[in-house]
Amino acid sequence: MSYDPQNVFARILRGELPCVRVYEDAATLAFLDIMPQTEGHTLVLPKEPAATLLDLSPEAAAATIQTTQKVARAVQVAVGAEGLLISQFNGAAAGQTVPHVHFHILPRWEGTRLKAHAREKADPDQLELLAERIIAAL
Amino acid sequence: MSYDPQNVFARILRGELPCVRVYEDAATLAFLDIMPQTEGHTLVLPKEPAATLLDLSPEAAAATIQTTQKVARAVQVAVGAEGLLISQFNGAAAGQTVPHVHFHILPRWEGTRLKAHAREKADPDQLELLAERIIAAL
Repeated sequence: MSYDPQNVFARILRGELPCVRVYEDAATLAFLDIMPQTEGHTLVLPKEPAATLLDLSPEAAAATIQTTQKVARAVQVAVGAEGLLISQFNGAAAGQTVPHVHFHILPRWEGTRLKAHAREKADPDQLELLAERIIAAL
Repeated sequence: MSYDPQNVFARILRGELPCVRVYEDAATLAFLDIMPQTEGHTLVLPKEPAATLLDLSPEAAAATIQTTQKVARAVQVAVGAEGLLISQFNGAAAGQTVPHVHFHILPRWEGTRLKAHAREKADPDQLELLAERIIAAL
């Protein structure tokens, strides 16, 4: 998959679009999904421009999974998740909608289902409050 | 989640149980799922004993995602996947069935659905042939 520098995550990384940030370091950025499939749905991405995990450098892949670990622990505490699903889609046939590689952190609870992907926008104020709780748990 | 050294993946790592191996290095092992949700369903695990991604050392997490990248590229070539889903379950509430951290590599095609997890055993001879194709693509 070729890399489109105008994709929405590239624009967020350049600061051209806003995000509800929970973590950032030299190699990675994590923010809340604005159309969450469940409370605490967080995205982690490398700053390196790559469309899929297969195109990403091994160094950036390492940094991204390490940020995912760190942020996932904080998300779990912040929302009291019983489990955590980590998923990562490569290619439209796998469900990828934004062509910049990213990991989904999805808190899970027994007996509850995930909402459909990218259907319904969350309340921005609620997302900001949730981000504060995640940042406090980091 | 506490680590049970008698879990099935720990026993595979110790060589006490067989697996259809496609890749191994000092820190990781990859083998075919014997109850695949789709053709080419492959598991990647760190050798480090850890129940979930949250318990795993950052070094082992890096090694595991880097093996996942390498093996995913070969799986994609071997089965001609249009897309690849990478998923990783932490805790029973998230669908984790074996308490040793592992990543699923799931080839995807437009318009096809995944089979249910851990329902139906694959033909062992077919798995061996598939493993040969993946190893050839590595």
